[in-house]
Amino acid sequence: MSLLSKCGPMFTDLYELTMAAAYFDHQLTDNASFSLFIRNYPKNRNYFVAAGLENALNELADFTFSGEDIDYLKSTGLFKDDFLLYLKNFKFTGTVRAMAEGTIFFAEEPIIEVSAPIIEAQIVETLLINTIGLQTMIATKSARCIHAASGRSLIDFASRRTQGSDAAVKTARSTYIAGFSGTSNVLAGKLYSIPISGTMAHSFVTAFNNEIDAFKAYATTYPDHSVFLIDTYDTIQGAQHAVKIAKKMKQKGNSLIGVRLDSGDMASLSRKVRKIFDDAGLTDVKIFASSGFDEYKIADIIENGACIDAFGVGTKIGVSADAPYMDIVYKMVRFKDKNIQKLSPGKVNLPGEKQIFRKAGPNGFYTEDIIALEEESFPDALPLLETVMENGRLIVSLPSINFIRDHFSDNFKLLEDKYKNLDAAHRYPVNLSQALANAAKI
Amino acid sequence: MSLLSKCGPMFTDLYELTMAAAYFDHQLTDNASFSLFIRNYPKNRNYFVAAGLENALNELADFTFSGEDIDYLKSTGLFKDDFLLYLKNFKFTGTVRAMAEGTIFFAEEPIIEVSAPIIEAQIVETLLINTIGLQTMIATKSARCIHAASGRSLIDFASRRTQGSDAAVKTARSTYIAGFSGTSNVLAGKLYSIPISGTMAHSFVTAFNNEIDAFKAYATTYPDHSVFLIDTYDTIQGAQHAVKIAKKMKQKGNSLIGVRLDSGDMASLSRKVRKIFDDAGLTDVKIFASSGFDEYKIADIIENGACIDAFGVGTKIGVSADAPYMDIVYKMVRFKDKNIQKLSPGKVNLPGEKQIFRKAGPNGFYTEDIIALEEESFPDALPLLETVMENGRLIVSLPSINFIRDHFSDNFKLLEDKYKNLDAAHRYPVNLSQALANAAKI
Repeated sequence: MSLLSKCGPMFTDLYELTMAAAYFDHQLTDNASFSLFIRNYPKNRNYFVAAGLENALNELADFTFSGEDIDYLKSTGLFKDDFLLYLKNFKFTGTVRAMAEGTIFFAEEPIIEVSAPIIEAQIVETLLINTIGLQTMIATKSARCIHAASGRSLIDFASRRTQGSDAAVKTARSTYIAGFSGTSNVLAGKLYSIPISGTMAHSFVTAFNNEIDAFKAYATTYPDHSVFLIDTYDTIQGAQHAVKIAKKMKQKGNSLIGVRLDSGDMASLSRKVRKIFDDAGLTDVKIFASSGFDEYKIADIIENGACIDAFGVGTKIGVSADAPYMDIVYKMVRFKDKNIQKLSPGKVNLPGEKQIFRKAGPNGFYTEDIIALEEESFPDALPLLETVMENGRLIVSLPSINFIRDHFSDNFKLLEDKYKNLDAAHRYPVNLSQALANAAKI
Repeated sequence: MSLLSKCGPMFTDLYELTMAAAYFDHQLTDNASFSLFIRNYPKNRNYFVAAGLENALNELADFTFSGEDIDYLKSTGLFKDDFLLYLKNFKFTGTVRAMAEGTIFFAEEPIIEVSAPIIEAQIVETLLINTIGLQTMIATKSARCIHAASGRSLIDFASRRTQGSDAAVKTARSTYIAGFSGTSNVLAGKLYSIPISGTMAHSFVTAFNNEIDAFKAYATTYPDHSVFLIDTYDTIQGAQHAVKIAKKMKQKGNSLIGVRLDSGDMASLSRKVRKIFDDAGLTDVKIFASSGFDEYKIADIIENGACIDAFGVGTKIGVSADAPYMDIVYKMVRFKDKNIQKLSPGKVNLPGEKQIFRKAGPNGFYTEDIIALEEESFPDALPLLETVMENGRLIVSLPSINFIRDHFSDNFKLLEDKYKNLDAAHRYPVNLSQALANAAKI
């Protein structure tokens, strides 16, 4: 379980509470089911990676208003005393069906379905959309980077420019699930047991009389954990300075892990720097690169023959810069045992509780998904949604982060490469079952 | 002071701590000064609105590692015991100079300057960049929306799609500073005493047998606080249903506040809906609109003659969708009483502690900013940076959020309209003082 502090039910849009008050007044206590899904693909996206379930379930398992919260709500003048008393005793008692974190999925497929008395099912909307949305968006962006990097290591450097601190730790977790090697964020390392990584900034180099003194000082403190940043003054000269110190480290039985490039034409510089180290017999010294990398720039620099072993990937991943939001929604699909469908222009949704069935070919590769009504069965296909919470209680044990990471990796291997193209030229086939299509009147 | 939970010093990139360990080993305890500034304008931006200082100062005033934090750091094997002991007793003891929240500023101008023993000044980097960066970015985006809306009300509806929960509450605060009327986020309302707003979702309408029943039920609970969502089935019919209920409300001495459009061609629909209400003698009923609004869409729909009184502004503002990050950096500018300058290609910064002097013309409009060395003075200009923290202690009392909001509004009026164009066609003049230009060797 995560140690992250919870938001609780006050992290909600006001209308969830005013609607709840109206339901309460009219004694609407029937069960409602809601589907959380992404309506369509953001730019260049072709698949999604589910993430954030652990965080969401942790919230739901302990979703209560404090006395202070109730006092604040009373002070707004919007709520009557009987409803405030109801909120004071509020708990989430519903059922949650969800796909495992790390699962690949597609547009219109429900990631989570919640079934509970309508007030409860409604009140969790803001939190579920926010937490699943962000983590899924970042895991998806990260998977694209992992694909582009073709086996090279990626490290999350996004913390300083994510949109807030919550996004920073969730980015660290989501990138790790998708196969990053670690994060620079110390808090995320502590919270999620993710490997942490990082050595020096330009300010360190400029704090010493010269670059060599800076490298020397760092190597004294970290004889076996040093990556020198070599572009503060001149990258080639920086590489030569690093060679000088690396040789001394070697004499003492230690070794320089690598050097980091952070500016200039890095494809060309990386080849020159590689040669400088190779010529000095320091073939083990790795070359790290950072500054503005995302899946496009990674693919590009690799195609240009860069000699880069690992990328520090920051801002553009941490905010999913080319597609910084998704059309993720949480829609009522069933109420009082009747399927529900909204028909607003451009915002139609599929009615009823659903299941996703995934088919695979003889070689294991995924061939087709079928979105069906929950009660249907397709014996030759894998159902993706499983019940994880019943009566407001977790009924499964949550997997470790490394289990989730492996699950993603196993999944991702079974998605054909053509669907992983950065330009999303091929759409994976997702079809509706006949029964769902009939129910949906479409 | 804000009630938001603090991140503390573990919210940091690992290299801040490894550099600190190396400084500690080499007894580098001299004072360093760092400048926090935005290198250049994101797409279509022409000015920035400072925000986030309160949050940053709250962190610095109590910036300590817990015993659990120290245990975790020890477990990484990266830190020696004497350094861990140092961290255990760590406090921020530095000086902070900053511009007031709500101040308009420009690229390259320092928002904050920190002066402290180098380890302390360095270790706050990740947190300062993250917290000031996000809030400034959102306040800036919001100011653009306020300008585009030409006096119409804006309400923050972003919570469900901001990048995490921290971003949601900071977006609520930043939009309010820039002149939004309120937020849908209940937690932000509680934390920051911001007006909260919101009524019903589509699910509410579909939970009843028909639209009229839904409106009627809501009006019973909120006889004077109702805004009906009228696009669930058909907007025109929805408006007619709303008229029916609004008339009944009027008979009882209550009144319908408004209706909300959330899909379709809203310029055209808003005119038709306005006519339906006006024809029914319900000229006081307001028209709200939501769904995908940002400064561009607001400007566009107003130009198209929409009859919209207020906009619910969500996702695109909450993630600053057209420019979801800024090139905000924190650079060492002085160390051991010597000015410092980094020269990496494309990443040059101005050396030394600085002051910004703002000049105004006879009519009060801002005419020019001069970035100067801190010790300079320009008697006819207003200095923007003031000392807010000394020896790690706040030496000013932090202004209320409404004071900040007014400060922004006063500021914004003095920025000529040509600089507020959404396409940033005109650049506000920012010049270096002769002394700074000499020091910068540029």
